Amino acid sequence: MSHDAVLEEGTAFTPKFDEKGLIPVIAQDHLSGDILMLAYMNQEALTRTLAEGEAVYWSRSRQTFWKKGETSGHIQKVRDILTDCDQDALILKIEQIGGAACHTGRWSCFYRQVITNLGRNPLLSFIARE
Amino acid sequence: MSHDAVLEEGTAFTPKFDEKGLIPVIAQDHLSGDILMLAYMNQEALTRTLAEGEAVYWSRSRQTFWKKGETSGHIQKVRDILTDCDQDALILKIEQIGGAACHTGRWSCFYRQVITNLGRNPLLSFIARE
Repeated sequence: MSHDAVLEEGTAFTPKFDEKGLIPVIAQDHLSGDILMLAYMNQEALTRTLAEGEAVYWSRSRQTFWKKGETSGHIQKVRDILTDCDQDALILKIEQIGGAACHTGRWSCFYRQVITNLGRNPLLSFIARE
Repeated sequence: MSHDAVLEEGTAFTPKFDEKGLIPVIAQDHLSGDILMLAYMNQEALTRTLAEGEAVYWSRSRQTFWKKGETSGHIQKVRDILTDCDQDALILKIEQIGGAACHTGRWSCFYRQVITNLGRNPLLSFIARE
């Protein structure tokens, strides 16, 4: 098989970390399908996540491991992990403990919708979804 | 308001592009909530997406604009755009034309699940989900 075929159709999990050693990870509620947050992992954060069964990210702003919920108690129990065709992104299907993935106390970090008038005259402002 | 408060609680859409001028974009089916792909936009791709009402990404591998479906016909009609607390990620709620978001012909690029034995003994191999 070609390199692409191995990557896309093979059965080997070979996640592709970027030049900073990171891979983007989408945390999705395992029941509702709601997207709760987008964060990053390095190899060790992924290894810890696999070993602990709870999400451990890499904080780009603090440059440190970030065990989700370590201080808030809002841990993310991992039910499943998916990867995409070129293995440079992950989905964690999670059970969010505490009812809030966002540090603002909201269920999801994606709590704002862009008013767009799509395909017509873009109007770039927010409306709250709540 | 502090900078963080403006970013997190304000009504101004000020997407944060990274040092390469890119922002990660999650394409999610607007009905099922399935995550179809993760791609990237620069400012102009976002502007085009807003103007055309159909997803236009920036291809990191080809270093060019990538109007999704331009050759395959599998365009993505944008129904809604969400952003997260720190405005460094977007969700496009889309209607996927042609029944396939992935270049492999699959509905979603996330067609493989990692066998993990989460919290126990990690076994890094894939099973197909189909």
